[in-house]
Amino acid sequence: MNYIPRPDEVRLILDTVLGTVPRLSALPAFAEFDQDLQAQVLDEAGRFVAEVVAPPNRGGDEIGCRFADGSVVTPPGFREAYRAFVDGGWPALSAAPEDGGQGLPAVLEAVLFEWLSAANHGLTMAPGLLHGAYECLKHHGSDELKQRYLSKIATGEWLATMCLTEAHAGSDLGQVRTRAAAQADGSFRVAGGKIFISGGEHDLTDNIVHLVLCRMPDAPAGPKGLSLVLVPKLLPDGSRNAVHCERIEEKMGLHGSSTCVMRFDDATGWLIGEPNRGLAAMFVMMNAARLHVALQGIGLLDAAWQKADAYAHERRQMRAPGPTPASRGSETADLVAEHPAIRRILDTQRAWIDGARVIAYRTAMQLDVARHDLDPKARERAQRWCALVTPVLKAACTQQAFHGASECLQVFGGHGYVREWGIEQVVRDSRVTMIYEGTNEIQAIDLLVRKVLADGGTGMSGLLIELRDELDAARDIDADVQRRLAQLRYLTTTVAMASQANASLPFEVADDYLRVVMLALLAWAWARIGRTAPDPARWSAPEAAFRRWVLPEFEMRLGIVKRACEAVVAPQVSA
Amino acid sequence: MNYIPRPDEVRLILDTVLGTVPRLSALPAFAEFDQDLQAQVLDEAGRFVAEVVAPPNRGGDEIGCRFADGSVVTPPGFREAYRAFVDGGWPALSAAPEDGGQGLPAVLEAVLFEWLSAANHGLTMAPGLLHGAYECLKHHGSDELKQRYLSKIATGEWLATMCLTEAHAGSDLGQVRTRAAAQADGSFRVAGGKIFISGGEHDLTDNIVHLVLCRMPDAPAGPKGLSLVLVPKLLPDGSRNAVHCERIEEKMGLHGSSTCVMRFDDATGWLIGEPNRGLAAMFVMMNAARLHVALQGIGLLDAAWQKADAYAHERRQMRAPGPTPASRGSETADLVAEHPAIRRILDTQRAWIDGARVIAYRTAMQLDVARHDLDPKARERAQRWCALVTPVLKAACTQQAFHGASECLQVFGGHGYVREWGIEQVVRDSRVTMIYEGTNEIQAIDLLVRKVLADGGTGMSGLLIELRDELDAARDIDADVQRRLAQLRYLTTTVAMASQANASLPFEVADDYLRVVMLALLAWAWARIGRTAPDPARWSAPEAAFRRWVLPEFEMRLGIVKRACEAVVAPQVSA
Repeated sequence: MNYIPRPDEVRLILDTVLGTVPRLSALPAFAEFDQDLQAQVLDEAGRFVAEVVAPPNRGGDEIGCRFADGSVVTPPGFREAYRAFVDGGWPALSAAPEDGGQGLPAVLEAVLFEWLSAANHGLTMAPGLLHGAYECLKHHGSDELKQRYLSKIATGEWLATMCLTEAHAGSDLGQVRTRAAAQADGSFRVAGGKIFISGGEHDLTDNIVHLVLCRMPDAPAGPKGLSLVLVPKLLPDGSRNAVHCERIEEKMGLHGSSTCVMRFDDATGWLIGEPNRGLAAMFVMMNAARLHVALQGIGLLDAAWQKADAYAHERRQMRAPGPTPASRGSETADLVAEHPAIRRILDTQRAWIDGARVIAYRTAMQLDVARHDLDPKARERAQRWCALVTPVLKAACTQQAFHGASECLQVFGGHGYVREWGIEQVVRDSRVTMIYEGTNEIQAIDLLVRKVLADGGTGMSGLLIELRDELDAARDIDADVQRRLAQLRYLTTTVAMASQANASLPFEVADDYLRVVMLALLAWAWARIGRTAPDPARWSAPEAAFRRWVLPEFEMRLGIVKRACEAVVAPQVSA
Repeated sequence: MNYIPRPDEVRLILDTVLGTVPRLSALPAFAEFDQDLQAQVLDEAGRFVAEVVAPPNRGGDEIGCRFADGSVVTPPGFREAYRAFVDGGWPALSAAPEDGGQGLPAVLEAVLFEWLSAANHGLTMAPGLLHGAYECLKHHGSDELKQRYLSKIATGEWLATMCLTEAHAGSDLGQVRTRAAAQADGSFRVAGGKIFISGGEHDLTDNIVHLVLCRMPDAPAGPKGLSLVLVPKLLPDGSRNAVHCERIEEKMGLHGSSTCVMRFDDATGWLIGEPNRGLAAMFVMMNAARLHVALQGIGLLDAAWQKADAYAHERRQMRAPGPTPASRGSETADLVAEHPAIRRILDTQRAWIDGARVIAYRTAMQLDVARHDLDPKARERAQRWCALVTPVLKAACTQQAFHGASECLQVFGGHGYVREWGIEQVVRDSRVTMIYEGTNEIQAIDLLVRKVLADGGTGMSGLLIELRDELDAARDIDADVQRRLAQLRYLTTTVAMASQANASLPFEVADDYLRVVMLALLAWAWARIGRTAPDPARWSAPEAAFRRWVLPEFEMRLGIVKRACEAVVAPQVSA
């Protein structure tokens, strides 16, 4: 079955849990944004994704991208679907109107990309970096470059890539060797090789705009000697630039997206931003990309859940224990969905999807606030949220996508392992999201070492107080969440202190710390859902699953981090 | 890289932790079994697996089994490897000498099959059911059937299948519809269709012996109306029987093994055991198969670990935190293995492999004891161990194979997702082990509902006391394990009582209960390793990883089960 977006479900979260429209329409940039517009955009997006994007997904996996003589042919239906995507104005949803965009809030783009990923992860990789490239160019590009490329990228007429990784430089970008040499006319000659370039070559657009991390001849060693250069496939005069795809990788999944080995043979390019400040310029793009990957995770998990839920309501195996289910009728076997082990899988994944949506959509709203709020304090708070929550979402949502999709596969029994039902594709496709845009281990280090500990935990503490203040201590569930938020604040201080005694410690506890944060955020999200969402019957099963089976990990991880800190501070006690 | 068995590592567990030779050579059946023989068998097995079985594994995935016109062509090198396997006498390792076997202990066969699975899961599927079929036929077959088939199966000259699943009957075998009609000459005509038949058709052996679960015309409905019929591909006169492979499944992995849709068109067969007692006869086979699948899990995890460990000691990325590692030398980046997040992955998987080996090899030893000990009480205790521990091992080791292999993939970063390194094959191949031979959810129900609660927890309590008594309370770590074993005994009583109040409860907590049991067993295993194994440096990192990151799940799961019990007994308190 193909993925079917559910605008009604998403609206429940946006409208009742997050209050998206009142919050965003208070910003001058979105003064005309209202319920009707939001509903209309979501309904149209849902239809478009269901009718145009989802159908070619299966062929994207089975046929995949084909490489021959430097060219990549995308799977059947991908060109047409991408063309419809551009013609519908979808790539430009949240780009500024002056750049050819529609000026809508980022939160709607977030929902759109979640659905796109759920329906067709492979195809969605193509425009996945567009918005990041747009922001990067908008903030760091020269007027001339913007003139030439900004609206083409905003509208998706040309696609963009992010060329970072080299064979010996994956997580360690400081080792990048691709060279950029300045020319008399202000352009650069780029020479070197890049790997794992998603959409490095394809037949979806005429031109492809590569943003390439490289090193100038006199640059300092390491990450502070990297510059960002824009290298188009086609030069402004229409001639072919010296950038070529050497081959595409054979992968575990995501066959609908070409993962290219690229060669730059003194290709012509133009500097974006300052020399040796390439990473800073690229980070704009990477942060957008990280939230995007978190949304892929949520979308893929929802795709897996939809398949498993449908199968569990068709397939009958054995009698379920307990009271006779209404669905039994005269059947000798009960629906798979009636069996507790299967019910648990479905409700638990639903709990993750619903809870993670609250956090992810709020993060997208904070992007809007950070860009458009007139109050600098509000912008600062929103930026803090994005900086701290984005790596948490990226790691936790992608981990859950893979593990949750595997749980959903289990609902099918042996049928889950054969291709026919499409669920194993979700498992294979989703696995890469735990790796790209910074492995999940890198996200954890980014969170704890680079962000939380960089200011001694002050920023994280502020965020947790902000969350606490949105809860109602008179409500038992809210009070429980407040207690957990306080535990996390205390834990943060404990880690900060122990890290002074042992600089390796934060690297050792980063993964567990990130999980504690995510579980606290989910607990907060479920408290908000419980307090605000109508139709309690819709939410009761996943909420119960969350409290029963997901949340206990909070104490477990908290204990792991605490014991590691204690061992550092008083090694003789815990040896 | 191909898998390389490590007989030295396995011998450390067999010799020092489990004392295999003294225990087994005390049984009359193994009076001649000694250290030299064990060492010789393991060394030869290790060489054979490394040199013959491992090399065709990659092609097994990439080329896979091919189906055309009812025939299956196995991947390149599989025929030759299987022929060498038969010629070397490996299938007959633990079969009785009078049946053409070598009469060696089952524990050596367990090690052999763990290594075979690690090296080439696809090929190992072919002989994977041989021993089960041998036992089934030996205990339930008529003299005539044994005469005709037993030694052919014991020696692997003919391969065997287990034909259970039908399109509408997976976990629910009571729904099997394949019919068996008695003929005047004592044979049966078998008609129907089966799916998911591993090795239902192939070119490894001339004949294939299908053990088919079917239903006689006058049989009662449900699982108590099932009979087991032996249906050979070639009839005794050499003519082709009316059993055919219609197609093979396209799967997520395990492409080296044909997963067949089989059609029986009034095929000729012979009853094994009593009419309508087919499940009982089949269970002999299924129990052997379940331990076998647990060993596949351990083997696949070790294969993933070997790949990741090798990669982590070659690849350099970034500076590791903390004191300068000796491996740094003049390099600007440190080995991936020096980074805490990677170290954690490797040590944690090693902890699972080593600990699970202790439990799995002990289980295989108990099979030997259950078959050959002269003391009926010893046989009974051994049977209890096998009944209770086999489902725990099957579920936990296969779950860890998949999840642990995925962790090992993460060590490779983006390279893990491309085919080249072979690690993603392990992830895909291992996923099916969580499903076949009874899904892991079924194992949990088998453990808790059918076994633990069937006698009110008495058997499990006895087993836990047996484990307790093998520990030394004067040692801190042993005392900690004893405390956990006591907690598990108490938990078992709590579940038994709460189940009286609510018959659904055990189905709801079965998965968590199984995890608690496995973690208690692992804790016991690590206490034993710590007390007995020489060379503490070899074990310290995985042992620390076990205590730090694996064992905390014990409390978490214990809490989940306890709260579920409390909610049943006093729902108003915990609502």
